[in-house]
Amino acid sequence: MIRFYNANILSVTDMDINYGEVWVDGDKIVYVGETKETDTKFDTEINLAGDLLMPSFKNAHAHSAMTFLRSYADGMPLQDWLFTKIFPMEEKLTEDVVYQYTKLAAAEYFKNGITTAFDMYFYPEGIARASVETGLRSIICGGTTGGAEDAEKTVERLENYFNTYKDYDPLVSYRLGFHSEYLCDNAVMQRVAWLSKKYSAPVYMHSSETAREVIECKERHGGMTPTQVFYDLGVFANGGGGFHCVHMTDNDLEIMRLTGSYIITNPCSNAKLSSGIARLAAANAAGVKLAIGTDGASSNNALDMFREMYLMCVLQKLSTGDAAAMPVSVALKAATYGGADCMKLPDLLDIKEGQTADLIVIDMNKPSMQPIIDVIPNLVFSGSPDVVKLTMCNGKIVYRDGEYTTIDLAKLLFESNEMAGKLYEKG
Amino acid sequence: MIRFYNANILSVTDMDINYGEVWVDGDKIVYVGETKETDTKFDTEINLAGDLLMPSFKNAHAHSAMTFLRSYADGMPLQDWLFTKIFPMEEKLTEDVVYQYTKLAAAEYFKNGITTAFDMYFYPEGIARASVETGLRSIICGGTTGGAEDAEKTVERLENYFNTYKDYDPLVSYRLGFHSEYLCDNAVMQRVAWLSKKYSAPVYMHSSETAREVIECKERHGGMTPTQVFYDLGVFANGGGGFHCVHMTDNDLEIMRLTGSYIITNPCSNAKLSSGIARLAAANAAGVKLAIGTDGASSNNALDMFREMYLMCVLQKLSTGDAAAMPVSVALKAATYGGADCMKLPDLLDIKEGQTADLIVIDMNKPSMQPIIDVIPNLVFSGSPDVVKLTMCNGKIVYRDGEYTTIDLAKLLFESNEMAGKLYEKG
Repeated sequence: MIRFYNANILSVTDMDINYGEVWVDGDKIVYVGETKETDTKFDTEINLAGDLLMPSFKNAHAHSAMTFLRSYADGMPLQDWLFTKIFPMEEKLTEDVVYQYTKLAAAEYFKNGITTAFDMYFYPEGIARASVETGLRSIICGGTTGGAEDAEKTVERLENYFNTYKDYDPLVSYRLGFHSEYLCDNAVMQRVAWLSKKYSAPVYMHSSETAREVIECKERHGGMTPTQVFYDLGVFANGGGGFHCVHMTDNDLEIMRLTGSYIITNPCSNAKLSSGIARLAAANAAGVKLAIGTDGASSNNALDMFREMYLMCVLQKLSTGDAAAMPVSVALKAATYGGADCMKLPDLLDIKEGQTADLIVIDMNKPSMQPIIDVIPNLVFSGSPDVVKLTMCNGKIVYRDGEYTTIDLAKLLFESNEMAGKLYEKG
Repeated sequence: MIRFYNANILSVTDMDINYGEVWVDGDKIVYVGETKETDTKFDTEINLAGDLLMPSFKNAHAHSAMTFLRSYADGMPLQDWLFTKIFPMEEKLTEDVVYQYTKLAAAEYFKNGITTAFDMYFYPEGIARASVETGLRSIICGGTTGGAEDAEKTVERLENYFNTYKDYDPLVSYRLGFHSEYLCDNAVMQRVAWLSKKYSAPVYMHSSETAREVIECKERHGGMTPTQVFYDLGVFANGGGGFHCVHMTDNDLEIMRLTGSYIITNPCSNAKLSSGIARLAAANAAGVKLAIGTDGASSNNALDMFREMYLMCVLQKLSTGDAAAMPVSVALKAATYGGADCMKLPDLLDIKEGQTADLIVIDMNKPSMQPIIDVIPNLVFSGSPDVVKLTMCNGKIVYRDGEYTTIDLAKLLFESNEMAGKLYEKG
């Protein structure tokens, strides 16, 4: 049993901070409250000396292994970049490459306070292996693509993956999903919707990332936006969510609200690829639920939830012309509670008794966190990977004061660069 | 003499990286080149093991001591925020408060790789004292305000400050400046322009930060923008620069280019206050010189040049709709060379023999810097305070591996919070 004491404990449900302690037994939080006398024998007692203990960040849209493409082909618009640069490099992927670069992502996630990635990528075997080995929670998301002719086979494969990985490990699960309207025939999306009904399971996909995608979708689908197409096909019958959702109409927002589906925003990626600014202030006002993802390192390039929260807030201030738009508490909740809820992880919502212990400690003695006038704006507007002191995933400390407990960083970096050399050599 | 070896040395003039070593004698860089055999006795030899050695960041627009207002009154538009919240709190300032919170800013600057602040704030005595004590380079910028009736007296005070501080210390100097068109009568600006001629000295001021400021200026000045007003009064006769410059016409850009004046951009502050996105891609294309500032912690809230470079790039991509807009090299040069050049510090431009040793070391073994495919986009798009390993100002190591050499951090934070308690109590 682990005891954190002298902690300032941030609840993101209540958005308040209370002084006290948190006990973790196995993978569970078993006590949250005031300092108390006890006969309990702890394996480890950690004096936080006033530092902030809070839920870890949940990265609700990731392509973790895309760390192998960080800084490759920078400065191109999405569609060209995707089709002429990224897809050809991805042809070279193997399970081992995905395994290797998912571990590299895990190292960055842990140091940045992220414990869960909603990972839509190739070779789930590689993702699962890297996750179990490093202690990262990966919720793998189906990324099915394809035409009508192969629809049955394609979606069968998705169902097999779903059944193989949904209860694979305490750290590894699987959710139904497909890539996007523009890479899927209706026949594929219909069959995924059918799977959703069969398993009462939510469905996720890229949606409305660029203006061009929406225009082309309307051409293909008699004037319907991607969100309308998904709704029409019954894809959101059990909720789920759309990744990006940059170019959304009021009606699209209403569909998301009505179906209880999440907008999973990726502000950094959308900015770098010049895709646009999502209408998050409008979505929030309309009652649409929000989560945040980093997207892949190829289009970001960092895997940093502090920067996502920051950008989410300031871009709304810029795009609406209202400096009060997008309160910090909305961004912080989206980055923690929202991510867990959107992935259907009800045990990972907050620092409460009975919840699973995915948590981080923020070093309040960094100059950027001082003076302590208002902690939440300090976190959202001044936070950075630099302030993360400790990261715990599933009750296990995976990172503390610059050191990893599950990762040999020097070996990981050496092997990652060696593998990059070979991948890029092949041209 | 200090020797850095096994270094990857980034020159921001050439934008290339060479392997080798850098020697520092006193405050000067005396050797940059390949590894070489030598009989020289070094006081300190530092093996960088392949880490990146580069010029430190130069913060070209700061109100350093505004750390006392971090996270205070978040989420308000500029003019209301300034007049109803910030100015009343600033009434409470004393030299000691400025001294204390400039030191707090120094702690954040050093850890974030910033060694110089172009600091427009009250009580230059306090700024100078904090700078000399911590080893921070502060180029104090006049921030004169006032009406016609006091113009003579006001500008006399500016001249006195200028003469007192321009050669005060190797770490402290002074530049002519006034606050802005909207806080200065023509009589004040004219007299500052006259001082500029008397001393052949450049002049700096806030300019065109909000749309409202420009509209009101045009009403006051027969349709002239702030930049036109400054040009008309001869303020830019010796160059200088405008802070912010968000709402600039093509003609304004041409004035800046023609006079060799800098646009000193503050993308984070402009975003948070919903002031807008500066036309930096257009300015760069027009040949206007660019530098970057953090502005005060009150409107940012971090003092983080990585985030400024990042935002500078992605906001141009968003505002122009061109994902290739604002190359990373332009942002990196603006954050280093541009800052030094704009403040007229020709010895602080780059890592070259004869230059003053203001430099930083980037830890390339952070996951966010890996794999090493392209270092400059890694820095600009994945960099954060977390990757700064060492900071040297004026030949002195002020920060290394989490430790300060000139600052007692625990004492500084305790005193800063204690002082904040009193300032905020007074209402």
